[in-house]
Amino acid sequence: MISKMTKKSHSNSLWGGRFSEPVDDFVQRFTASVSFDKRLYHHDIEGSIAHAHMLAEVGVLTPEEKNTICSGLQAIREEIEAGKFDWHVSLEDVHMNIESRLISLIGEVGKKLHTARSRNDQIATDIRLYLRDELDTLLQLKTDVLNALADLAEKHTDTIMPGYTHLQAAQPVTFGHHMMAWFEMLLRDRNRLLDCRARLNVMPLGSAALAGTTFPIDRKITARLLSFDGISENSLDAVSDRDFAIEFCAVASITISHMSRWAEELVLWSSTQFGFIDLPDRFCTGSSIMPQKKNPDVPELIRGKAGRITGNLVSMLTLMKSQPLAYNKDNQEDKEPLFDSIDTMKDVLCAMASMLPHVTPNKDKMYAAAQQGFGTATDLADYLVRKGLPFRDAHSIVGQAVACAIHENKALDQLTLAELQKFSAKIHQDVFDVLSLEGSVSARNHFGATAPEQVQLAITRGRERLQK
Amino acid sequence: MISKMTKKSHSNSLWGGRFSEPVDDFVQRFTASVSFDKRLYHHDIEGSIAHAHMLAEVGVLTPEEKNTICSGLQAIREEIEAGKFDWHVSLEDVHMNIESRLISLIGEVGKKLHTARSRNDQIATDIRLYLRDELDTLLQLKTDVLNALADLAEKHTDTIMPGYTHLQAAQPVTFGHHMMAWFEMLLRDRNRLLDCRARLNVMPLGSAALAGTTFPIDRKITARLLSFDGISENSLDAVSDRDFAIEFCAVASITISHMSRWAEELVLWSSTQFGFIDLPDRFCTGSSIMPQKKNPDVPELIRGKAGRITGNLVSMLTLMKSQPLAYNKDNQEDKEPLFDSIDTMKDVLCAMASMLPHVTPNKDKMYAAAQQGFGTATDLADYLVRKGLPFRDAHSIVGQAVACAIHENKALDQLTLAELQKFSAKIHQDVFDVLSLEGSVSARNHFGATAPEQVQLAITRGRERLQK
Amino acid sequence: MISKMTKKSHSNSLWGGRFSEPVDDFVQRFTASVSFDKRLYHHDIEGSIAHAHMLAEVGVLTPEEKNTICSGLQAIREEIEAGKFDWHVSLEDVHMNIESRLISLIGEVGKKLHTARSRNDQIATDIRLYLRDELDTLLQLKTDVLNALADLAEKHTDTIMPGYTHLQAAQPVTFGHHMMAWFEMLLRDRNRLLDCRARLNVMPLGSAALAGTTFPIDRKITARLLSFDGISENSLDAVSDRDFAIEFCAVASITISHMSRWAEELVLWSSTQFGFIDLPDRFCTGSSIMPQKKNPDVPELIRGKAGRITGNLVSMLTLMKSQPLAYNKDNQEDKEPLFDSIDTMKDVLCAMASMLPHVTPNKDKMYAAAQQGFGTATDLADYLVRKGLPFRDAHSIVGQAVACAIHENKALDQLTLAELQKFSAKIHQDVFDVLSLEGSVSARNHFGATAPEQVQLAITRGRERLQK
Amino acid sequence: MISKMTKKSHSNSLWGGRFSEPVDDFVQRFTASVSFDKRLYHHDIEGSIAHAHMLAEVGVLTPEEKNTICSGLQAIREEIEAGKFDWHVSLEDVHMNIESRLISLIGEVGKKLHTARSRNDQIATDIRLYLRDELDTLLQLKTDVLNALADLAEKHTDTIMPGYTHLQAAQPVTFGHHMMAWFEMLLRDRNRLLDCRARLNVMPLGSAALAGTTFPIDRKITARLLSFDGISENSLDAVSDRDFAIEFCAVASITISHMSRWAEELVLWSSTQFGFIDLPDRFCTGSSIMPQKKNPDVPELIRGKAGRITGNLVSMLTLMKSQPLAYNKDNQEDKEPLFDSIDTMKDVLCAMASMLPHVTPNKDKMYAAAQQGFGTATDLADYLVRKGLPFRDAHSIVGQAVACAIHENKALDQLTLAELQKFSAKIHQDVFDVLSLEGSVSARNHFGATAPEQVQLAITRGRERLQK
Repeated sequence: MISKMTKKSHSNSLWGGRFSEPVDDFVQRFTASVSFDKRLYHHDIEGSIAHAHMLAEVGVLTPEEKNTICSGLQAIREEIEAGKFDWHVSLEDVHMNIESRLISLIGEVGKKLHTARSRNDQIATDIRLYLRDELDTLLQLKTDVLNALADLAEKHTDTIMPGYTHLQAAQPVTFGHHMMAWFEMLLRDRNRLLDCRARLNVMPLGSAALAGTTFPIDRKITARLLSFDGISENSLDAVSDRDFAIEFCAVASITISHMSRWAEELVLWSSTQFGFIDLPDRFCTGSSIMPQKKNPDVPELIRGKAGRITGNLVSMLTLMKSQPLAYNKDNQEDKEPLFDSIDTMKDVLCAMASMLPHVTPNKDKMYAAAQQGFGTATDLADYLVRKGLPFRDAHSIVGQAVACAIHENKALDQLTLAELQKFSAKIHQDVFDVLSLEGSVSARNHFGATAPEQVQLAITRGRERLQK
Repeated sequence: MISKMTKKSHSNSLWGGRFSEPVDDFVQRFTASVSFDKRLYHHDIEGSIAHAHMLAEVGVLTPEEKNTICSGLQAIREEIEAGKFDWHVSLEDVHMNIESRLISLIGEVGKKLHTARSRNDQIATDIRLYLRDELDTLLQLKTDVLNALADLAEKHTDTIMPGYTHLQAAQPVTFGHHMMAWFEMLLRDRNRLLDCRARLNVMPLGSAALAGTTFPIDRKITARLLSFDGISENSLDAVSDRDFAIEFCAVASITISHMSRWAEELVLWSSTQFGFIDLPDRFCTGSSIMPQKKNPDVPELIRGKAGRITGNLVSMLTLMKSQPLAYNKDNQEDKEPLFDSIDTMKDVLCAMASMLPHVTPNKDKMYAAAQQGFGTATDLADYLVRKGLPFRDAHSIVGQAVACAIHENKALDQLTLAELQKFSAKIHQDVFDVLSLEGSVSARNHFGATAPEQVQLAITRGRERLQK
Repeated sequence: MISKMTKKSHSNSLWGGRFSEPVDDFVQRFTASVSFDKRLYHHDIEGSIAHAHMLAEVGVLTPEEKNTICSGLQAIREEIEAGKFDWHVSLEDVHMNIESRLISLIGEVGKKLHTARSRNDQIATDIRLYLRDELDTLLQLKTDVLNALADLAEKHTDTIMPGYTHLQAAQPVTFGHHMMAWFEMLLRDRNRLLDCRARLNVMPLGSAALAGTTFPIDRKITARLLSFDGISENSLDAVSDRDFAIEFCAVASITISHMSRWAEELVLWSSTQFGFIDLPDRFCTGSSIMPQKKNPDVPELIRGKAGRITGNLVSMLTLMKSQPLAYNKDNQEDKEPLFDSIDTMKDVLCAMASMLPHVTPNKDKMYAAAQQGFGTATDLADYLVRKGLPFRDAHSIVGQAVACAIHENKALDQLTLAELQKFSAKIHQDVFDVLSLEGSVSARNHFGATAPEQVQLAITRGRERLQK
Repeated sequence: MISKMTKKSHSNSLWGGRFSEPVDDFVQRFTASVSFDKRLYHHDIEGSIAHAHMLAEVGVLTPEEKNTICSGLQAIREEIEAGKFDWHVSLEDVHMNIESRLISLIGEVGKKLHTARSRNDQIATDIRLYLRDELDTLLQLKTDVLNALADLAEKHTDTIMPGYTHLQAAQPVTFGHHMMAWFEMLLRDRNRLLDCRARLNVMPLGSAALAGTTFPIDRKITARLLSFDGISENSLDAVSDRDFAIEFCAVASITISHMSRWAEELVLWSSTQFGFIDLPDRFCTGSSIMPQKKNPDVPELIRGKAGRITGNLVSMLTLMKSQPLAYNKDNQEDKEPLFDSIDTMKDVLCAMASMLPHVTPNKDKMYAAAQQGFGTATDLADYLVRKGLPFRDAHSIVGQAVACAIHENKALDQLTLAELQKFSAKIHQDVFDVLSLEGSVSARNHFGATAPEQVQLAITRGRERLQK
């Protein structure tokens, strides 16, 4: 059952000095990270080039050595991008693969690159550089989705639909207002991501293994070359903590929690029973057995992605729980959940940005649904309050009117004035204005409410806030 | 097995208008929230008073009505704080308990308070007010802990201990530097909390059930009275989202993840094998069977609290997953995990702030431990680099020297010059300076590194950053 | 900010021998567990009585000592149940509260009870005894729900509703069949609980602190008195592991995951758009602002409870992650999530068992919904296969027929024979038999399928399996 | 930012009949599962062959058709295993890739294979078959680890080490006893896996899309061919539930929680401070900067794997939360966490099974550590109880003796008889027998305790229980 322990013919040449026996193949594969950390190659090389520049500035490398190293690193980047680079599990990780190739490419001078650093600060730097780029992509994608939402809302500032609480029609709202609820959620998520970006954009390089280095490095040079806003204040912290990555996973979890809610609504709305929207065919798939099916696969998958992104967050939190300082090998496990949450968020946002412009609300069905369910009952209660009844009494009277209407199988505005007056003498002909959907919606005309005028203002403000 | 379904004699008087049969006792208890949401009474009343003021300003209440209502609410607050208030499960939640008492206390006018709002925006407001106060307490507690850390670090800028990676002694560091690693983690956590506070300090009140209200409310008045920085932009979003609470739970999870790491170290360090610190007796307990035991209960419990705080975060994320808009009853489940994470964080921070000033490092044991494990091997490699060897070659040579020293059962600086020179002719008498712990620590003298001078600078900067 | 450190006047009398300063009040509260572990009092006393009996059998206690102790313990139990027992936080936990009271009640002999045991094996035993009782309650509640499901299914073996995939009507099924899907899920959950019960019913008592005891105990006696099926094999394992509690939390998570699905369906079905069921008023509540609302609170809350139960599981797993053996104080944190999952599961099952008998399916609405959505398209494809077409070709043809019907705004069985024959000449008059809902449902007449006959057989088998 | 929407030239040929526009490339990739579900190919083909046999038995296929299909499927299996199979994302999943190839290989008759089934029951069957095989591998690996533990324990039934509670030395135990604590944990995990296997070995095939099929299938034939123990009772349940997969993920989480604890101990024990064990070099790696390091990478990684396995469980639970029946696209997300937990468990168990036989306890260091920390204090208390003192009084006296010994910087057995008698006149010369480590360990001589004799018996019983 157990993997065969074929001896490697030679031990790892970069750190194997004190080891008397080779790492066997299974252990090598089990402990290696190159299969997943090679995606950091670009940022690893970027970091190494900046490091070499700094070493030259402070006199640890000669200008020639620096140039040779940088040329070598650029050649390696080209090899990788051309698919011509041989990755070796026996070289453990992206760093040692690149360094080993550098030495084979440029000779002895390549052995000088790792001066004044360690893989511990190197990987911490790589992840931050990588994540920073990905955050910028995600921020752009969020902006795309936010713009799509504002555009969709703007087309429907006065499209009436039922507003739900408890999945029971509660009061009429506008479709535009509903879209702007999603907008608000995502705008906060975007701001969370900006906060996260600010916190991660601090350079750990120079922390070396855990305590700093004895070489006369100048970290500000490297930070400037790598566009970091700041430099880590403590070397032990810098190599051992991954809270920026957990923070990203948390922000992603909140975002996907929002998106699972939108997705649930898209699925509901595209059901036959609701029929509120049509999703374009290309966001749906069919059935292998039921020829009539048009399944809202894309929203369903988005809903399902909440699982993996929440799971990734838990993975990261569990991973870090009660690890003593500083770097432990456990931390190698930080990458896959992080990468997966990044990739998934990109896909989900891309899917939403592609789909939203093609969501077509079915106005008739939404209007008809809003007419069911006594959505203007609150308006009637408010009407009675304006006529002088305390709210609680008005609420109670309307409750009786609704019970009567249910019994009569009528909508509230289908009751006659005489019928309505049985519940309160304060009801007059003008009541029918407040019982209409349009009247109800327009009457909610204050900051943050659903009146078309307010929705348009909210869209305008939303677009401005997005610019900031 | 099933709870007896004794009929209540009367249905709920505040919303029971359309219901033909009473809610039975089990269901009443199952669906009621008053057992846990009554802790919001203070903020609920604060919100109601502000709401009444605003209603009076816009003419929905007369000044007299407003005054009567506010006096009644204040009387109720006093009743509650004096322990004289009767909470009724049959009144479901904190809001209806207070409103019902208000009506019994001041009569009909009490029925007017709920005009132009709903429990949906009321509870959303209460939670934000409550959490805002608790965040301020937590921010202060974090400041206390940060100050305790800076003070402890300052006493030990040159106290030498082994720095670990993989729980193997790696390089000597100073105890002050180690404490400042914790400081950095917590300072970021504090900044996360500040970001969270900024995002939550937005007022949902005025969103009513989900769509706003038909009354001519002025939300800016209420927001000003309640010291909110802003007003929610969308009523559907405002009553249905709880992302600010999830964000807090996430920040708490990151914080406790850090603290579980500190706690792990405190437990390790107070073990007989390490013996690096003494914890005062009052943070420890004894054993019911083993009279000699002195158990580090407080750090162990802090470590264990990582479980509940992470669990609370998962509860919140799971809760919100794929809920359609707007408010659903599910959301009632948002309070207990939130409250528990608040309470737990307060306890944990209080415990740390109390304990840290009394942590006494055992300098001798730490120094002796730093002497074991070849902690200055890197210094020897750096020495060889400065003598002209490429780092990788230096690394390899030192590996052989260490292997020899292990074989000889000596520390590196116990090898003779002659022995050392067997590994490289570049080694001279001056090597013994770099092989000492003090030499090693002092040589790491750049921004963020462990040299005593740098640690003192980091402490000074840390205190300044804390002021901001 | 930090709790005042008022000195206690005396240290804990049960283990304070070696301590030179008292535990302060905050630490006392922070480390004490009595506020939540006192609910174990009954099982703690049960365990102590059995322990005393065993000690007497093996000669460590005299019969008189044993009798005095057991009488004392019974008196304490009565005090507790009469609400006359003073719990002291200063006595930390349920064990020391009871032991201390025992000594005050019966004098010196009370000090002998703790011979040959430790709080470590005592609490491990208490939790197992407590959980065993609660599991038996939960098993009975699950049986109640299962019976309610079988009863409900039996009333509706031929009530037709749309079967959904992707929330799109797929094929007609019977309501009874749908209820039996829930039955199957819960029956597996019940079996998981039985497996869990078998694994937990092993006695840790006798493991003492971690290594066993030097007294000549006979653990089989105690196990027999406490109705344990077995005795733990390893003392270190017995005091430090809580996997039985995690297993329960996992089983509860799977169960609530099922129930959140049922609850989702109940919420959907009671929406206006679906209208498939009516929930009795007493499982619903109203709105404080919208008089017409009848909210399915009980299913919504059940759905929401998925959050806390999943969170509790994560708490437990996080708690145990990387704790070294044997008992650590962290483990004190095992109780609250466990208790909460137990309490929540009892409530949820009780709610379901109460509600299900009163769920009334609205046959007309379900039938009408099943007629929409081309639910018999698969039947048409199968028909064509029976006429000799390969399935894939049949599937494709029916897809075209459905597209045509959508275009014509007709159901499949509203197309004329001529229209149908345009898609395949193999279609004849008998096609209309397979296009009816009744025909479709009846035709799925094999083990596990939805034909009324099969559903009745499944109910009968289900009831038998439940007996086992 | 958004992926280019290059139109596919043709829509999916297997279900695209009713679709008017092609799925674009991004959506195709986003919704396709073939990149990860292709690993099910073997079991998919196995299931299809059994299905074809059954269809032939009941007359839906002719024997010739069946033979053609089965030969085609076997040819495809060979293509795949030879790496000659072209997987197409445009064909979505493993099922359609194989079916499409089958049709191209054997022509029209290939279109008949999908008769009387759906991808919904097909994938449910594939996962169960796949997981069943993997469970058998895991069971064998667990057996390997258990045997390794029993072997290691047997070599050390009388090797003394300190037993810890709260990471404080509590009482001496034997290394063999400690290993058998791990054994017990894993044996329970193995039994959980057996329970899980029994529950999953039930065949969903025949459930078709959700309601069964109109063809006269005989599910018992297929189940027998596929070695299933039973047939699912309800088609809706069978296609929509994944509780067997969640159960596996939960069992894996409990297992890795145990293993993270062992790993923590291995890391601790291989630290310089403890020095209790040596790990072979091949389970360790070195440092890129610190030549002297020998890092316990394998245990650290095992500890870290707790994160991903717990995360996978949370992913699955979140995924299923509140999904309505029956199959939804969300469920496509069930595979990656499941596969990852399987792969990770295999690796972790393989690593443990490889490593344990090579763990060498350092007897001298463990013995010396056991002598520190007053590990026989409980023995002294028990001694006093045997001399007639109540346990609580004895406990208190020993507490004072320990305080004195700490003050004198002596071990308990280094106090003179006269010194000891100051604490109790009942102490005599024979006390020194109970104060020795060997005496302490041997005296704990009952079922489940640490005496060498008992450990040997536990090993023997453990091996027998493993056979069952």
